[in-house]
Parts: sequence; structure tokens; C-alpha cells
Amino acid sequence: MTDPASTALFTDHYELTMLAGALRDGTADRECTFEVFARRLPDGRRYGVVGGIERLLEAIENFRFGDAELQALGRICDEEALSWLRDHRFRGRIDGYPEGELYFPGSPVLTVRATFAEAVLLETVILSILNHDSAIAAAATRMVSAANGRRLIEMGSRRTHEESAVAAARAAYLAGFTATSNLQAGHRYGIPTAGTSAHSFTLLHDSERSAFEAQVAALGTGTALLVDTYDISRGIDTAVDVAGTGLGAIRIDSGDVGVLARQAREQLDSLGATGTRIVVSGDLDEYAIASLRAEPVDGYGVGTSLVTGSGAPTAGMVYKLVEVEGRPVAKRSSHKESRGGHKGALRTHKDTGTAIEEVVYRASDAAPPKAGPHDRFMQIPLMRDGERVDDLPTLEDNRQRLRHALVSVPWEGLKLSAGEPAIPTVFADAEHST
Amino acid sequence: MTDPASTALFTDHYELTMLAGALRDGTADRECTFEVFARRLPDGRRYGVVGGIERLLEAIENFRFGDAELQALGRICDEEALSWLRDHRFRGRIDGYPEGELYFPGSPVLTVRATFAEAVLLETVILSILNHDSAIAAAATRMVSAANGRRLIEMGSRRTHEESAVAAARAAYLAGFTATSNLQAGHRYGIPTAGTSAHSFTLLHDSERSAFEAQVAALGTGTALLVDTYDISRGIDTAVDVAGTGLGAIRIDSGDVGVLARQAREQLDSLGATGTRIVVSGDLDEYAIASLRAEPVDGYGVGTSLVTGSGAPTAGMVYKLVEVEGRPVAKRSSHKESRGGHKGALRTHKDTGTAIEEVVYRASDAAPPKAGPHDRFMQIPLMRDGERVDDLPTLEDNRQRLRHALVSVPWEGLKLSAGEPAIPTVFADAEHST
Repeated sequence: MTDPASTALFTDHYELTMLAGALRDGTADRECTFEVFARRLPDGRRYGVVGGIERLLEAIENFRFGDAELQALGRICDEEALSWLRDHRFRGRIDGYPEGELYFPGSPVLTVRATFAEAVLLETVILSILNHDSAIAAAATRMVSAANGRRLIEMGSRRTHEESAVAAARAAYLAGFTATSNLQAGHRYGIPTAGTSAHSFTLLHDSERSAFEAQVAALGTGTALLVDTYDISRGIDTAVDVAGTGLGAIRIDSGDVGVLARQAREQLDSLGATGTRIVVSGDLDEYAIASLRAEPVDGYGVGTSLVTGSGAPTAGMVYKLVEVEGRPVAKRSSHKESRGGHKGALRTHKDTGTAIEEVVYRASDAAPPKAGPHDRFMQIPLMRDGERVDDLPTLEDNRQRLRHALVSVPWEGLKLSAGEPAIPTVFADAEHST
Repeated sequence: MTDPASTALFTDHYELTMLAGALRDGTADRECTFEVFARRLPDGRRYGVVGGIERLLEAIENFRFGDAELQALGRICDEEALSWLRDHRFRGRIDGYPEGELYFPGSPVLTVRATFAEAVLLETVILSILNHDSAIAAAATRMVSAANGRRLIEMGSRRTHEESAVAAARAAYLAGFTATSNLQAGHRYGIPTAGTSAHSFTLLHDSERSAFEAQVAALGTGTALLVDTYDISRGIDTAVDVAGTGLGAIRIDSGDVGVLARQAREQLDSLGATGTRIVVSGDLDEYAIASLRAEPVDGYGVGTSLVTGSGAPTAGMVYKLVEVEGRPVAKRSSHKESRGGHKGALRTHKDTGTAIEEVVYRASDAAPPKAGPHDRFMQIPLMRDGERVDDLPTLEDNRQRLRHALVSVPWEGLKLSAGEPAIPTVFADAEHST
């Protein structure tokens, strides 16, 4: 049995063969800088949102090879590599963009400085977490933007891998969702959970009325009753009859929810249930959410499109070696060219607080670019000697950070339609290496 | 700390509130049948592939509430529900399509028979696993089909959640991939793993030659050398110079891989390395794989498109209550209408073995439809009294099953282009319930 907490095997085979090769020829100890960045944003997206940093740091702390993990590598690694792995824990430095920060093409989202042996092993686990969580965070942010202050509940667990679901719920909360249906996310990350009943609960009962009565008995009149199992209009009548005009909410999960919400609002008001909220769900994405802005909808339940990144299920970040023993390095053979050298980023802003550009500069240069009073250096220290630095921002801090970051985006950059990145990335002093 | 093996919290909040409500009004013990099916296949897909059944059965066996899990539910459940959960283990029956089987719209992929309380709790964990693994299995199958016998290596771990990556590697292997880069998948499921080196290994070294020398020293001349870090043609020269004409393979990860593969083949042959294989990678999907059929490519490395389901990251299956105490039930209010009743499926075939249609019938009818000598009843017993039945097919069995199932698909159904399902689904005696 491998240790369930160990992340050591969330690793690609070639990281171990490279380790073995580098140990053998003495290059394993060379001091390296690896950088995580996205060459481009998903088609037409105007910003990316960093997600998963906290999960990532935890995964690196748990990147340890016990007996079971070493045994699993027996056929891949020679004795020298196995013995190196046995004592291994990561001792390098990591700096990066905090969660909830926006990023753009070429933003140095994460910088890992360690020996080659230490850093090369982390490629897969780092990218898995950042690519997944950032993809969900970006889609969720667009939905929050589209909802314009209305409540969003994440309920997509059933549409994605059971563990992705937990991470997706976390990323959605980071982005500003109100709650999640996922109990593990509630337990693991302290995120508010929500939920009342499914159609099966109504079908189980002899009548819709008896189902509503059972739910109100168990959850009180403040609950949300699902009214679209049979006939929505009769469902609403029954709901108010059972729960009274103090009914918390109704949920509509099917049909043309805009039209139905309008009809439901009229009906609820005419029954005196003027305070009863209307929650809609069923294949909503950011465009559907935006299209319902004019309708009397109080909250949205979002599933599939959230957990699949609404068309962009991965953020496409890469982990590239950019410096070896102080010497910038980069692949050269094709369009996939990368910029060598250890880099930093400065986001410049107008006096009004609106972002102007992402300045990516060579961190090894004598002086970083001059920052104005509204400008911000983007990376923060995350790990020193393989341990998380003190006082890292919390999930709540990062939720606020994203809210503020969005305010700084030029107006065009918040449009849902496809377009250019909200601000350009400018590479200052970060010439292509030789 | 919750038990890492427990799957009890991969559950939506509303399943617990329904449990509490049903326990309170006495409906919790009603015998129910829930059915998993897909209303439609992802846009233009011609078949679905069942994945994840084995993971699902294991997850159900581990669906137990210990102290930590119960504590997490304290604010959601009343005392009665908590005490019910404490002793709970699933004791129902499950039948379903085996992994590696094809499915079509309306195919009863899984049938769960248990009390409402037992069955309602499993909705999320069942759907998470089936929707994820089936989505990956279907995309992978299209790639295997497109590769037409050439080797496929799954290397997408870095593009998806770290645990999804393991399940995706398993689904790809089920579909016929040769190997995966994912070490956890190798360890957990006994899938062959593969990998040699990344560009970082070349960049780490003082020269491409010294990197190749290190790799050959560690892995032997049978290894695959990555030749596109600087100049591909010089990279191939150096590779053969270092490893000799017995070099196992070269890998090309960028550029127009079709053109480059042809040039590389000529160059390798002219150097006498006629047995050296050419592996290509870099943003390949089933269409790119198919387009390379005429090129001298010996193997493909596939990443992003595999783990994201190549445009269809979720299978869209639903879990619906279809029968209560022998009475068919179904939602009625909209286009989302479902067919009530406990159902079975028979796939009919011509004498030649080509599939004709998916006949979905009411299992409660006196006699199932008459099956011809080439026809097949699709469900097999999976779980009885909450325990896996003996002699379930293995991953290797199911890999063979899929290979055979594909042979039975009408020719049109194997096209990569968008179209109708490969065979129609016919609902016999499964009328809409009242």
C-alpha cells in the first residue's frame, strides 16, 4: 500500500529516467530555475485566473517516497536513484502569483529554484494542479462576472472525476461562487455547502404535495422546493400551499428558464410569496447566466460548464527550464520557442487603478523595473527550503484579491466574447537567450 | 481526519437532506430502481464507451461513514440520519454494462436496486466516476481507431487534475493505448509506463551530445532520444552518432510533425538507422493522428486532448429514479422527459456480426425480447448485497471486449466526423410512464 497522502507517484515516468541519467553523469546537482507560464490563453479568453497554489504547496510537502513508492519504481530507477529518492524532500525556493491573481500570456506564474534533480521531479504534479484549478477558476470567474452579484451555487461534482470535483468546488469558491453542493469540499476547505432535493425525492413520494411536506418538515419553510417534476405552475401552487408565503425559494431545473422564471415570479407574487427566491439550474454557462440578467432570477445552480472549464478544461501552462547555474537556456527549434532566464513581472496601472500592461523582466538584471505608486510586482514568496513561508494568504484573502483584480481590468477585458488578452504582456530585457 | 479510503463525502449536500426527509416520513425504505443513462452522445459522436465500472464498485464498497465523516455532516443531518449513516453500508444490487462496452443514447448503462435511502446517496459518486472515465475512454477509443494499429502513449497527466490523470491513464489503456507516462496508474492498475526525457534534460547539459550520452548510458541504446531541442536534423545526426544505428527511437515534439517525420525517416535511413522508430507528440488529437497515417510515424504521444475527452470532457450520464416499489416513475414537465421502469437492453446483430440496434425493454415484463444467436443482453451482474460478484471481468478482459465491440460497429459508425449514433436505440415496451 502506498501512503495515501504521498504525491510522489503523480509523476511522469520520464522525470525518473532523467533523474537517474543526471545522477549518473553529475548534472543532477546543477542549480536550476524552472518557470510555469502559459504561452497563450484559451481561445478568445481575455484573462487567466491562478488557482491551486495552496493545493500545490501541500502536494510538494507530501512529495515523499516511502517503501511502497520506491518499490513501484524498482523497474525504472537504478540503485543510485532509488537511494537518492529515499531521503528526498524538496528543499528549493518557490515564488509565484498568489491564487486569485489574473495572469496573461507569458506571465511567470510560478518560479521553482532548486537542483535539477529536485525540480525536474515536480513537473507533473505542479502542472496538474495549476492547469486544472486555474482552468476552473477562470471559467468560474467569467460566470461570477456574468451573474453580476446574484448568487451562484456550484453543483457540477457529478460531471467530473470525484477528486477533481472537490478541487473544482474550491476554485469556484475562490472565484466568488456562494456555495457548493460538494460535501468533501465543504469539509476539506470550509466552503459553504448547499442543497435541498432532486426530482427523485418527489417521484419517491405518492404525490408532489407529500414530498414537499416531507422536505418542509425536515428543512423548514426557508428551504428551496424543486417545482418542475410534473407541472411547474401546479408545483408552485402546491409549494406555497405547503410552506406558506414564507417559502425560501423555488428551483426550476428544466425548460426555458427565463420565461419560466418570469411566470413563476408573477405567480409567486400573486400568491403573496413576494419574498420567495427563484433559483434556476440546468446546463447553464456564463452566456446563459448573462442572458438571464433581465429575468427575475435570484440565484443560479451551475454544473457541467463549471467543472469542465466551460470549453477550456485545462489552462495549458507549461513548466520550462529557463536557467542552469545562472545561464539562461531555452528550446530553439520551432514556434514553441521560449524565453530563457529567471523572470519577474510587474503589472503597471493608471492612476485610476486600471491595469496597463504586464511587464515581464529578467530577474537577474541589476535592478528591477521602476514601479509607480499603483504598480504591483506579481510574485510573492511561497516556499523556502521546501517549506511554506509564514502567513500565506488564505482562501478568503485570495477571493478578495480576485474581486479587486477584476476591478482593475480595462472594461473591454471583462467582455464574455472572444478577444485579445485584457492587457498586453511586454517582455523587457528578457531577450531570447542563446 | 477523514479516512482517505472513504468515498462517503464525494456526495452532494442534497442527497443527505433527502435522506433525512425520507427517514422522517417513512419513505426511506421504499424499494427503488435508479438507472444511469445518457440522453444523448456528445455532439456528433457515434458511440460511447463505458469506463470506470471497476473504480465505481470499489468506491461503493468504501462508501462508509466513520466518525470524521459523520462529524462533517453534523450541520446537515439530524440525529436520526446520523445514526442511520453510522451503520450504513450499501446492500443493494447493481447490474450494468461492463467496461469496454459501447453504449448509445438511452442505453441502461447501470441499474441500481436498493432502498431509496441507500440508492440516493450514491448518485454523485457513481456519476462522477462514470462520466469522467467514460468520456476519456470514448476519446481514447477514437484515437486508437485513428492510429490504426500504431502505438499510442498516454502522456496527459499534467493537463488535468492529479487524480483524474490516474483514472484517465486507466481509461486510455482500456481503450487500447499501449502505455502511459503516469507512474501512479502503473502502480495502481498495473498499466505499462513509458518515458525517457524532456527538453529540460538537454538544456541542463552543456551540449545536446552530452545529454544524449547521459541518456544512453542510463537507459541503453534502445531508448528514445528527443531530437528537437535545437536543430532537428543535427539532433538526429548526433543521436545516431551517440547511440549507433541500433538507436531505439527518436521523438519529435514540435513543428509540422508530418513533414518532419518524413525528413527524419530519410535521414535515419541514410545514416543506416533503418530500425530506429519515430515517435511524435505535441497537441495531437484523433484528427491529427488520422492525418499522419500516411507518414512514417511509429508511435504517438497524446496528452491534452486525451485527458480532456477531446472536446467532450464529460459523458453527460444521469442517474434517475425509474421505479418505486414496482411502480414506474418519471419526470414529466419538460423536454427532459425520461422513460420510467426498470429496463434491460439487447443488442441485435446480423449474421455477419454487425450490430443492428440497441433494444431497450422493460425488465419487469413477463419475458425479455427474443434474442437471436448473434444478439447480446448488455447488462451483467456487478454487485449483490453490496458486494462485488465473483469473477468480474478484468481490465485486460475489457480491453479485449472493446476491441471486439468496435469490430461489430457498422462501418459508418467508426468515422471520426460528426454524425448520428452508429446504431439506433429502439424502446420496446418501455412507454412513457404515467
